[in-house]
Amino acid sequence: MDKENLSAFPVGGKNDAFAKYFIGQSYLNMLSTEQVVIGNVTFEPACRNNWHIHRAEKGGGQILLVTAGKGWYQEWGKAPRTLKAGDVVNIPANVKHWHGAAKDSVFQHLAIEVPAENGKTEWCEPVSDDEYFNL
Amino acid sequence: MDKENLSAFPVGGKNDAFAKYFIGQSYLNMLSTEQVVIGNVTFEPACRNNWHIHRAEKGGGQILLVTAGKGWYQEWGKAPRTLKAGDVVNIPANVKHWHGAAKDSVFQHLAIEVPAENGKTEWCEPVSDDEYFNL
Repeated sequence: MDKENLSAFPVGGKNDAFAKYFIGQSYLNMLSTEQVVIGNVTFEPACRNNWHIHRAEKGGGQILLVTAGKGWYQEWGKAPRTLKAGDVVNIPANVKHWHGAAKDSVFQHLAIEVPAENGKTEWCEPVSDDEYFNL
Repeated sequence: MDKENLSAFPVGGKNDAFAKYFIGQSYLNMLSTEQVVIGNVTFEPACRNNWHIHRAEKGGGQILLVTAGKGWYQEWGKAPRTLKAGDVVNIPANVKHWHGAAKDSVFQHLAIEVPAENGKTEWCEPVSDDEYFNL
């Protein structure tokens, strides 16, 4: 995988800070840490984050802008949605969900944090191999 | 110019709504109109927007994520900054500035509107040919 040429945005280093909330290897490069927080997240094939919830009293949630590859987005109790470069996902606050790569493709998205009042991310259970490989 | 293959994000139609605030031809494709407003703006070579100010009482301003080509960003009274794919510009609220393409290159950026209290854009004078072609 030629990670550095997936899009205009550098991949950055291994996403060690959040590794405990991911299955597989991801990479994180922060593009903006002021005004609106924006990170470039790159997933190796089959890498995905755990189910999680962007808790907020007002505002909050996240917007994904898919820059490269193929992946998945799923909200709790709903059908999974396939994602490809150019797709946009508006993730509401307080909705349990996960996102990650397809099993045979690298995946990269910009993650735009929607400003929130009393916002925090609640991390839940992993997306098991049974769930993931039967998508 | 093969506009559609500049990045993962579609170019959209001609930016008629804002054409009076631009010199040259630009294109606009809205990627998100909820949570945080995000547009994909594509400039033909030498196209640039007028000097303008993102007025806000709190928050506000804009973040540019450059997806393709070469361009310029300049704040009033400061030296112009060259931009290339992968660059990020945090534009503060209430600062007069302009952005646009290099004279010999198409240019594309995502424009992320920083949520604001009582935000509005104040459009000012064009960047004259004298200013622009002497950059």
